[in-house]
Amino acid sequence: MTGTATRSWWGWGTTDRALDDDECATLGALLPGLPDRPRAVPDLADVALPPSRVSAPTSLPVSTSPADRAAHTYGKAYRDVVRALAGDLSGAPDLVALPRGEADVADLLEWAGSAGVVVVPFGGGSSVVGGVEYRGDRPWLSMDLTALDRVLEVDPVSRAARIQGGALGPVLEEQLRPHGLTLRHFPQSFEFSTLGGWLATRAGGHYATLHTHIDDLVESLRVVTPAGVSESWRLPGSGAGPSPDRLFLGSEGTLGVITEAWMRLQDRPRWKASASVTFADVSAAFEAVRAIAQAGLHPANCRLLDPGEAALAGASAGESVLVLGVESAAHPVASRLAELTDLAREHGGVVAEAGGGTDAAADAWRSTFLRMPYVRDGMARMSAIVETFETACTWDRLAELYATVRDEVGAAVTAVTGAPGLLNCRLTHVYPDGAAPYFTVLAAGRPGSEVAMWDDVKAAASEVLGRLQATITHHHAVGRDHRPGYDRQRPEPFALALRATKGALDPAGILNPGVLLDAAPDHAL
Amino acid sequence: MTGTATRSWWGWGTTDRALDDDECATLGALLPGLPDRPRAVPDLADVALPPSRVSAPTSLPVSTSPADRAAHTYGKAYRDVVRALAGDLSGAPDLVALPRGEADVADLLEWAGSAGVVVVPFGGGSSVVGGVEYRGDRPWLSMDLTALDRVLEVDPVSRAARIQGGALGPVLEEQLRPHGLTLRHFPQSFEFSTLGGWLATRAGGHYATLHTHIDDLVESLRVVTPAGVSESWRLPGSGAGPSPDRLFLGSEGTLGVITEAWMRLQDRPRWKASASVTFADVSAAFEAVRAIAQAGLHPANCRLLDPGEAALAGASAGESVLVLGVESAAHPVASRLAELTDLAREHGGVVAEAGGGTDAAADAWRSTFLRMPYVRDGMARMSAIVETFETACTWDRLAELYATVRDEVGAAVTAVTGAPGLLNCRLTHVYPDGAAPYFTVLAAGRPGSEVAMWDDVKAAASEVLGRLQATITHHHAVGRDHRPGYDRQRPEPFALALRATKGALDPAGILNPGVLLDAAPDHAL
Repeated sequence: MTGTATRSWWGWGTTDRALDDDECATLGALLPGLPDRPRAVPDLADVALPPSRVSAPTSLPVSTSPADRAAHTYGKAYRDVVRALAGDLSGAPDLVALPRGEADVADLLEWAGSAGVVVVPFGGGSSVVGGVEYRGDRPWLSMDLTALDRVLEVDPVSRAARIQGGALGPVLEEQLRPHGLTLRHFPQSFEFSTLGGWLATRAGGHYATLHTHIDDLVESLRVVTPAGVSESWRLPGSGAGPSPDRLFLGSEGTLGVITEAWMRLQDRPRWKASASVTFADVSAAFEAVRAIAQAGLHPANCRLLDPGEAALAGASAGESVLVLGVESAAHPVASRLAELTDLAREHGGVVAEAGGGTDAAADAWRSTFLRMPYVRDGMARMSAIVETFETACTWDRLAELYATVRDEVGAAVTAVTGAPGLLNCRLTHVYPDGAAPYFTVLAAGRPGSEVAMWDDVKAAASEVLGRLQATITHHHAVGRDHRPGYDRQRPEPFALALRATKGALDPAGILNPGVLLDAAPDHAL
Repeated sequence: MTGTATRSWWGWGTTDRALDDDECATLGALLPGLPDRPRAVPDLADVALPPSRVSAPTSLPVSTSPADRAAHTYGKAYRDVVRALAGDLSGAPDLVALPRGEADVADLLEWAGSAGVVVVPFGGGSSVVGGVEYRGDRPWLSMDLTALDRVLEVDPVSRAARIQGGALGPVLEEQLRPHGLTLRHFPQSFEFSTLGGWLATRAGGHYATLHTHIDDLVESLRVVTPAGVSESWRLPGSGAGPSPDRLFLGSEGTLGVITEAWMRLQDRPRWKASASVTFADVSAAFEAVRAIAQAGLHPANCRLLDPGEAALAGASAGESVLVLGVESAAHPVASRLAELTDLAREHGGVVAEAGGGTDAAADAWRSTFLRMPYVRDGMARMSAIVETFETACTWDRLAELYATVRDEVGAAVTAVTGAPGLLNCRLTHVYPDGAAPYFTVLAAGRPGSEVAMWDDVKAAASEVLGRLQATITHHHAVGRDHRPGYDRQRPEPFALALRATKGALDPAGILNPGVLLDAAPDHAL
């Protein structure tokens, strides 16, 4: 899907799709207070990399090339892109490992444990929470798993496949297509993130309801830990003790490296229908979405754009827009869509557009959605502050959360940048008992201060979420950036359990230290 | 719901519903090789209880009455009933604690930890896997939580309630009814099991598809551990690290006592429809159920009875019977039922009966289902071997599993009892990638040898399940009886993690030792 295009070392995706200077400038002109022209992208040859402090045995597949080290220094958060654009690669990994198979993974872990080298598992590198960036003083190795990219086995009867953890989204879907099957997990990062990364971070995918996280699609996991290989049985359901898979789901590379998983697949959908509904009032829209989420209809898509977000997407000013989609491989879906739009109408919605088959609106959205990170990078080059944060809370708190975020984070944006900027919201996933709001911030930054400015805005956002007991992350993971919010959210006995587990599975404390837990001596035995 | 009826100390449920001697004898006459009359139920006054070896401070709510100790000696497995009928209460708890609130729970744990007294949490006491029966040498306390039975808070907007862990099924539903809401979790043990017990054992409930386990209905948990209280935030979904709730779900009282949970509720269903479909061939029935499970239609009921099980339920000989049910609080369900029966017909099914509204067949089934444990007890008094075991596996292995269980467990029944007896199967829960078969064994036992005979049959069953990597339990939990099968199934690194967690949360090793993990010194620090 990405063809022979070159991956960007500083920004999202492939270099051929990055905005050029004129596009950046045109876009930047829409937001008052930005420079006229974008910051130049530095030539990697001019960027200083620290010397590599450690060398691995030649038997291990390890690279110290500047290109590899630069490409594995950061994830792809806004603050990562800004730092890379500023030519700051001071935290680059000493080594980049490129294991060719599970044996290499085990060998690398063994060597790193004995050599005291930190190991940060790296899938597609699309973390937006500092999940693949080590911030300590020890020598470290970024373990790039993308060579483990095969679908090893397909069980068409149970509709499941054994897939290696390093397979990028398009790579695994391409191998499933001849079987008429699909994993149908499409996070925004789909092209540049891996199955193992999705599992380790509990990624959110295609479905707005029901199976919102990759967690629900897991049949079994195979994980290489420093204490041995953990492989759960393939089971459709089980009640035998706490779920072993649920321990590794969300472990973010701190307990082991997910090398394989049996994943639940689906037939490719034959029937699709979608509708767009507008609401004059965002509160009415929330109520409509709640009614839909509680009706047991399980739409595949149920995305609510608030007025600001809808305006960006081209809707008339002041309206909220709800996009509904239904799909099935087994039966027609028109009647289900009608049930959904009926509910939306009962709550004051105006059905603006409904259709099946061609799905042009959905395709247009998808294209915009996938283009978004490139736009983000272009705006970052214009010194804009452009980032997102997401959460989830129960319905009883949603209106308060929405209002409080807009008040307090809006105030923080104004305080930090001197102007209110944009602060939009959409609901990405909905549940019978709550919803997952996703906020986008766009404001003018001051060249050279963007990271600090964003960090201030983010701190205000995290403070609101924590105060209202809304999760610090619905599907972006914890990484290093969300640690304060996560520490506030996580029950202390669970922290004890996690530390004890870390000590048992990673006694040398080499795996992604600083993520989820403090680095040693926090978990040291 | 149970009114003022007396709970049985030796068998299931309430004494007024137990079979009388004549009913036992009539039933027993259906199976060749049983005695003419049932074994007498001993008078509790004649049963020897070991002296209580420990006394608690008078400030703690503790009983040493023979009735309390007898009623808390065992769960309600077949082997428990047989041992109680034989007057064997040698393993009775030294103390029965009846905490009046969470503070008592914490005080009891603190005292027990300092006194070295084992604590076994006890909800409704319906464990069928030795989950509430301590088998070691230390003094032990059974902690009966049924006084913590309040619905503390209802959030009608998010459709959720904060409910104490000791609430029995009918007790919590009665408190939810005025709100028009229901938890709608109806395991067979519903009347005699508690929310906390369901959560600690990952109970299977009402729904045949989708939300099969109580796990999916949990919004947050509050757990008193010896290392402090763990309380997760109320969240509809989250991606912040491994799920804290999933650690306690299935922990079976080994890590803490679940005192409260915010549970996701539902509106009471307004529309219901059900149909019964017969299949001449069990393989075709499996295929039909697979097609239904993979079509995304999510029937509330999808229960397949194999020919033996169907014959017991009154169907014509040699046929399999599939019972389908659909229900909704939000919309009519007739079209969904039609989609389901269409799929069944496409796979050779004959739709024998379909209806909506009155649901008489479902009520009849429910009544038989709830009566079953009393029948089991009556047959136990007749020295029959009558017990169930359940599992789950992926579709690709189901036919082999079914055949192998029938061959090998059937052979074990014949070897142990001298006759094949009955070995029936139903699918209780189905998934897109597999199903949960539930087997019933009925055979003539030899008075005095029933437990040993059943243990031999069960060992044969567990051996087949383990060999085919089918779970040792889909929803009955691990307890003590399933330990060998669980140890085989559980990945060793997960065992390391669980032991480390146990050491961190229960350093004195007092909580339900022998369940999930070996008792100390296995987890000793």
